[in-house]
Amino acid sequence: MGLHEDDALQAADILMRAELRNISTHGLMRLPEYVTLWKTKRITVNPNFRIVHQTPSTALIDGGKGFGLVTAPKAMKIAIEKAKTAGTGWVAVRNSYHFGIAGYYAMMALEEDMIGIATTNANPLVAPTFAKEGMLGTNPIAVAVPAGKEPPFVADFATSPVSRGKLDVYAMKGEKAPGGVVQDSEGNVTRDPAVLQKGGALRTLGGNVETGGHKGFCLTAIVDILSAVLPGANFGPTVVPTLGYVKNKTANQDKGIGHFFGAMRIDAFQTAGEFKNEMDNWIKTFKNAPVIDGFDNVIIPGEPERRYEKSNRINGIEINEKTLTSMRKIAREFHLEI
Amino acid sequence: MGLHEDDALQAADILMRAELRNISTHGLMRLPEYVTLWKTKRITVNPNFRIVHQTPSTALIDGGKGFGLVTAPKAMKIAIEKAKTAGTGWVAVRNSYHFGIAGYYAMMALEEDMIGIATTNANPLVAPTFAKEGMLGTNPIAVAVPAGKEPPFVADFATSPVSRGKLDVYAMKGEKAPGGVVQDSEGNVTRDPAVLQKGGALRTLGGNVETGGHKGFCLTAIVDILSAVLPGANFGPTVVPTLGYVKNKTANQDKGIGHFFGAMRIDAFQTAGEFKNEMDNWIKTFKNAPVIDGFDNVIIPGEPERRYEKSNRINGIEINEKTLTSMRKIAREFHLEI
Repeated sequence: MGLHEDDALQAADILMRAELRNISTHGLMRLPEYVTLWKTKRITVNPNFRIVHQTPSTALIDGGKGFGLVTAPKAMKIAIEKAKTAGTGWVAVRNSYHFGIAGYYAMMALEEDMIGIATTNANPLVAPTFAKEGMLGTNPIAVAVPAGKEPPFVADFATSPVSRGKLDVYAMKGEKAPGGVVQDSEGNVTRDPAVLQKGGALRTLGGNVETGGHKGFCLTAIVDILSAVLPGANFGPTVVPTLGYVKNKTANQDKGIGHFFGAMRIDAFQTAGEFKNEMDNWIKTFKNAPVIDGFDNVIIPGEPERRYEKSNRINGIEINEKTLTSMRKIAREFHLEI
Repeated sequence: MGLHEDDALQAADILMRAELRNISTHGLMRLPEYVTLWKTKRITVNPNFRIVHQTPSTALIDGGKGFGLVTAPKAMKIAIEKAKTAGTGWVAVRNSYHFGIAGYYAMMALEEDMIGIATTNANPLVAPTFAKEGMLGTNPIAVAVPAGKEPPFVADFATSPVSRGKLDVYAMKGEKAPGGVVQDSEGNVTRDPAVLQKGGALRTLGGNVETGGHKGFCLTAIVDILSAVLPGANFGPTVVPTLGYVKNKTANQDKGIGHFFGAMRIDAFQTAGEFKNEMDNWIKTFKNAPVIDGFDNVIIPGEPERRYEKSNRINGIEINEKTLTSMRKIAREFHLEI
């Protein structure tokens, strides 16, 4: 598509990291979506990435409608640089697109002994408590925290109870969706996993109000405000969808989606040594906790992905037939060997 | 108890704000708990509040075992002052105690055109996914965001599906707890609302893994790490409990609980005018969204509490018999008129 080689390699590294970590919903299967965004001229190749405004600990970035996979790592690097002098760095981005796994950016902070944070908004698929329609993205939060001898804590999760990728898997297998996680076009709770394609929506984490669903709404809303309202991207239902089955509810200008990145130097609070030692204690305390009969242990966030990455780096990744077919098709279009 | 008058007035203001906002679980009914902490010498009156370490955008505070209601507002003021020059301010606090409603501190940022953030850890009552016992607090998150003509967005929620106060209400009324929010001492899901007093635990937001309970664990864990590990307070199950029925699982030194505060100047990103105008759009978009039959509208976080505060400031607050009795008892002990 004409990207500078270093930007293309950076984007590929992010997609491959998702594959290695067994998050294939954010890996190579996204390529056709990215190519379509380029073909329909929604994405600008080699755009004007610029810092619109900054202070010692903050920056507002305009991504110039470039690929999220190219804009996001540059923005996170700025957050890390700011943290080196100001203690923390916070960067909000507008005019961007899908950025892959949020965890990639949060983990960039680890090698600098910083806590890394990354969030983004997305296609409106999640219905706020009491609402009939999807108005918020599955808006992920990633937080990476360095430890000492233990591997780092890496939480990276969509704030909706399940992802749309997970629903597709239920549908493909002919299984029902778990109770309480989706609603139909009238807002009735349903177990139809293909309901998003029929005008339905994901519900918020927690489900009904009695089980805390309004807290899930708060959480997804906070991510929308920090990632989209703060930088001036399209928020909530005003996001111009990149999914064919999502109705475009906005007459607004396309200012892309937005991201929010944070980096906090550990030694801007405690010394890194003291902190890492205590994080090791935290991890060991939870890993060794008594568990309910039938379970092995409490899973430390990031632990399963780390194991997958370790073994996949040796054994290679599995690519399913559908993804391979779409990659072959793209390769032919671009006259590449595969 | 001998507090400096301005500190006592500040603490009273926070408790009364909770009452005004109809969050009476964090209001006057907490007084006996605070007096007990003082009597048992866990709380130091007029302690040595000190900045242990700082950078342009951060500070680590040692609260010297003072009341959270006195330490926390001072810490949030430091975050706000740092944001004035560095763009953002982030303050972590150790050696503190229960600080009342998190929303009070987040809202302090609003009058400065800043986004305010406040979190704390607490008594270990929440069982991580697969764990048998309560190991994490109900760890609240508060985020306050200024708007223009609309009232501000104020999310303030325990990250557990229900609060322990809510469970007490179910028990008092002879009602069952909602499905999936608590487990017994063996980890079996139960609907007994008095289960915390019998060695049971709250479950995480989202419940089972299929409905996103592991995401609730991530969220509560992130609050524990930022509020307690980062400043060097007692984390998770090592918190020395302030509730009689919670087993003390720690042989650790009492470094109190911890808090984490953030203040971000809006105009460290966009101009405050542009941002507030867009926040008004955000609020109106969600308030006017189509709702499911039988509901009135989507509730903007902070809206119900704001309405209560407005009418309670005119009509006064209701104090229940039990709270009044405990206040009378405290008044007699301290030779005060009530």
